[in-house]
Amino acid sequence: MRRIVFGASLFLTTLALPAMAQDHPEIGQRQGQFNLIVHNFAVLGGMAQGRVDYDAALAQTAADNLFHVTRHDQSRLWPEGTDAQSVEGTRALPAIWENLDDFVGKFVALQTAAENVQAVAGDGLDTLRPAVGALGGTCQACHQTYRAEAG
Amino acid sequence: MRRIVFGASLFLTTLALPAMAQDHPEIGQRQGQFNLIVHNFAVLGGMAQGRVDYDAALAQTAADNLFHVTRHDQSRLWPEGTDAQSVEGTRALPAIWENLDDFVGKFVALQTAAENVQAVAGDGLDTLRPAVGALGGTCQACHQTYRAEAG
Repeated sequence: MRRIVFGASLFLTTLALPAMAQDHPEIGQRQGQFNLIVHNFAVLGGMAQGRVDYDAALAQTAADNLFHVTRHDQSRLWPEGTDAQSVEGTRALPAIWENLDDFVGKFVALQTAAENVQAVAGDGLDTLRPAVGALGGTCQACHQTYRAEAG
Repeated sequence: MRRIVFGASLFLTTLALPAMAQDHPEIGQRQGQFNLIVHNFAVLGGMAQGRVDYDAALAQTAADNLFHVTRHDQSRLWPEGTDAQSVEGTRALPAIWENLDDFVGKFVALQTAAENVQAVAGDGLDTLRPAVGALGGTCQACHQTYRAEAG
């Protein structure tokens, strides 16, 4: 009987220790990609919303950065078992792995929108604004389906 | 007198609270770039050192990723006051800001080395190995001068 109780206790201890993001370097790596996206979207979104003065060179640099960052291949950044139900330190919902084709499609939409911003970033605010709006829309489309609310 | 003592106490309290990395989003953003470099260098370095089987497609994808990640402009990622003496959560030494031209030159060397890896990644291990070695050398050259030891 003691043996069985010990076994159950060990089982519960295991359950009580969630996996941590540092055990899955891919989590920090894909979050690194999002950090770089934020670094550049902050400038472009700020210009589109009038909080940052439009500057053609700054806009173009940010758009070039976004092009390069969104070209990073995703295939090794989302291994199974790195969702928010399995690991602490990520907001990636299990729905990603249940709808991988749709998830990948939403990333391709981000890439296309980033290309479109890159093509017009230096052409003035009136041209930049709708392109940045479309880019922000691709972020939102993915987040509302595949990212948990901030905890 | 009480007023002076209070003032001194407030001053000491301020000194005792180091700035934190989360007050400087650029720190997490530039670390994001390094996280992505590690993501890809792990594959290429593993192949060069025989720990990962050579796979031309995998090597090329990792090299393409490194090309794009190292194209990200550095100009807004290293604001003054985000060194390891001023802020917790970064290993960036103050020497960076005292030798900015040299620091930038070392980043340009990384970009060139990444381009060279990209050009040969699919051409077999014998060609890949020296290019990856040179790339690793550019990482080391910067780290030994401008990055604090892990704490």
